[in-house]
Amino acid sequence: MAEVIGNRYPQMITLLSDFGESDVYVGVMKGVIARIDRAISIIDLTHQIPPQDIAAARFALMNAYPYFPPGTVHIAVVDPGVGGSRRGVAVELAGGYLVGPDNGLFSGVLSQFPVIAAVELTNSNYWRTPQPSNTFHGRDIFAPVGAHLAGGVNLSELGDAIAPSSLVQFPLPSYSLTNAGATGCIQYVDRFGNLITNIPATLVEGKNWSVRAGKLNIPSCNIYSDRPLGSPLSLVGSHGWVEIAINGGNAKSQLNLACLDVVQVILEL
Amino acid sequence: MAEVIGNRYPQMITLLSDFGESDVYVGVMKGVIARIDRAISIIDLTHQIPPQDIAAARFALMNAYPYFPPGTVHIAVVDPGVGGSRRGVAVELAGGYLVGPDNGLFSGVLSQFPVIAAVELTNSNYWRTPQPSNTFHGRDIFAPVGAHLAGGVNLSELGDAIAPSSLVQFPLPSYSLTNAGATGCIQYVDRFGNLITNIPATLVEGKNWSVRAGKLNIPSCNIYSDRPLGSPLSLVGSHGWVEIAINGGNAKSQLNLACLDVVQVILEL
Amino acid sequence: MAEVIGNRYPQMITLLSDFGESDVYVGVMKGVIARIDRAISIIDLTHQIPPQDIAAARFALMNAYPYFPPGTVHIAVVDPGVGGSRRGVAVELAGGYLVGPDNGLFSGVLSQFPVIAAVELTNSNYWRTPQPSNTFHGRDIFAPVGAHLAGGVNLSELGDAIAPSSLVQFPLPSYSLTNAGATGCIQYVDRFGNLITNIPATLVEGKNWSVRAGKLNIPSCNIYSDRPLGSPLSLVGSHGWVEIAINGGNAKSQLNLACLDVVQVILEL
Repeated sequence: MAEVIGNRYPQMITLLSDFGESDVYVGVMKGVIARIDRAISIIDLTHQIPPQDIAAARFALMNAYPYFPPGTVHIAVVDPGVGGSRRGVAVELAGGYLVGPDNGLFSGVLSQFPVIAAVELTNSNYWRTPQPSNTFHGRDIFAPVGAHLAGGVNLSELGDAIAPSSLVQFPLPSYSLTNAGATGCIQYVDRFGNLITNIPATLVEGKNWSVRAGKLNIPSCNIYSDRPLGSPLSLVGSHGWVEIAINGGNAKSQLNLACLDVVQVILEL
Repeated sequence: MAEVIGNRYPQMITLLSDFGESDVYVGVMKGVIARIDRAISIIDLTHQIPPQDIAAARFALMNAYPYFPPGTVHIAVVDPGVGGSRRGVAVELAGGYLVGPDNGLFSGVLSQFPVIAAVELTNSNYWRTPQPSNTFHGRDIFAPVGAHLAGGVNLSELGDAIAPSSLVQFPLPSYSLTNAGATGCIQYVDRFGNLITNIPATLVEGKNWSVRAGKLNIPSCNIYSDRPLGSPLSLVGSHGWVEIAINGGNAKSQLNLACLDVVQVILEL
Repeated sequence: MAEVIGNRYPQMITLLSDFGESDVYVGVMKGVIARIDRAISIIDLTHQIPPQDIAAARFALMNAYPYFPPGTVHIAVVDPGVGGSRRGVAVELAGGYLVGPDNGLFSGVLSQFPVIAAVELTNSNYWRTPQPSNTFHGRDIFAPVGAHLAGGVNLSELGDAIAPSSLVQFPLPSYSLTNAGATGCIQYVDRFGNLITNIPATLVEGKNWSVRAGKLNIPSCNIYSDRPLGSPLSLVGSHGWVEIAINGGNAKSQLNLACLDVVQVILEL
């Protein structure tokens, strides 16, 4: 038990997975953490990542990461290769730690924050059991390793150092600058049907701009209610990307657009 | 960090929203709170309010509010007017605090507990940033303001005082007394399909009564199992309203009734 | 307030129910617990048990129980008989406590851990009110009793002792040994569509084996990726039961199998 009143330990842990909330998988991971250190606070990012959807997990973690206290340990488990040859890793960054499978899940965060050190999780002293199951490393490896890290164990004790450059990258289509502005794609659709592109807001801020998607021309505005109820609009979303929405509606279903569809930003002179 | 062992700070925070649990919006609000004060306990009321459904949020918050410790800060974000002209407010009541948009969301709680003081959230020193996004005040204004309030900041520091009577009321159809008893409507349907009316239980307690809805005559009873499996029944629900249910079934789908449908309580002599 | 720094109180509480997450029922139970002792940590196992499905609750609780710290209080509320004649109980076991309705919900845990003592919840001093509602004992009896137990109140104070053998058993079809291996059934289907049988992994470990279900012959393997994408496979699941899955797919929908369907394990010589 690493409980230290008034000191930095234990740190906070966040959990992200595709486990859903109808089974007890997430609860079991929390039990494993609590057995190691009951004083750790645990926050759920989401467990509703579509099964095995590494792209959605990459996006979700990248957008949540910057808002947590320095030193937070982020455990992410979307793990179609569990039990196979993919590595389990822990990564130290400016601002926090990542723990989970090395399958591209972390590449969004890694694109925005420099890596200080990374290890492969080879030291089974910090696992729940030296013989982990083949199907649930979240319980047997990632949760206990994350709990020890949050409790003050050094990253270097968790396994063999690996080169940060060897961490797996998830191949997201990138945006590109054009004569008219930029071309990119929809990288995520949220619960409200808002369509989040991969075009950064910094390209449009302070300018006059609109979005072209398929045959649609979508004017930009500052807030939803600048446009009539039911009208499509584009704006700078809260995560810092160009977004397409409908005031009071669902852009995904009403505009018939989906992930990876091509989107153009048109800058006006 | 306002951590005081053995004293009343920090208070607890509850969160209610229509953000769902598939995106990281709720997790991000918790990260923002933890950065301000890691010792605050956070409890989710629900994040499954149907998108932009202020009526459902009003009902949910009104029914949860009385069960929390005095001083709890309730942050509620169902906010179709985000970024527009609606005010952000914080309200001090006997028993706790409310923080969120002034759009009627709080009018259920306000109908049952007297207001001590209310402010418009104009002091950006307590926001996450003086330039909040136009679409996510939950993260940029309401979560940080709620965290500071739970950490001991005085309500009056958060902004300009406003008249409690100016807080927006949500127009719920009211029930009325009749010769036969009372007429009201269904104000909420829960996950089990139980139909919760707006007729208070105090009208029927200790009396013989039944409910008429459409062409149905629905006898009252004390517990579900007083009636045969599959039979409709009316009873005093756990939130203190007259409810319609089916023993072992789903009243909403089996009786074909929905929100705002008219319901009569018949008192027997 | 039973807060003791550096001592064993207060213990942790877990919650399991069929309340879902769209209503505030779960949040209200947490408020009731916090009013009794704000220092108790609360972990959700799941609230997505299908309404009134005691079998699913039995399975979920049985599989989560062993992973929590000794002394944890598990409150489980799937309670079709609420307000009727079924008893409310609290049970002390090696490793933790159970609190909830005596309807078979606990029989999975009880089959694996010896009972130390059991009481019927007859002492209303530990309830939220001496006149509990007829429909929400989770709020009025089980949450407050669980909070007092986690805070250090002795089990024997909560009500009259009852014989452990009198606790209700849920009738799960049992597996049986055959000449070829074993016959059992599917006892649970998880979010991924994995089919979890009631045949314990100890019967197959270290042996060559396969599964027969309907007309299908399903080979066993150690990890999902031992078999081609889209192929059915059987393996030892993380909860210690023989499971049927599809690498990268959904066994429930693709194999057209469901709960209680018969499954045979064939041991090879």
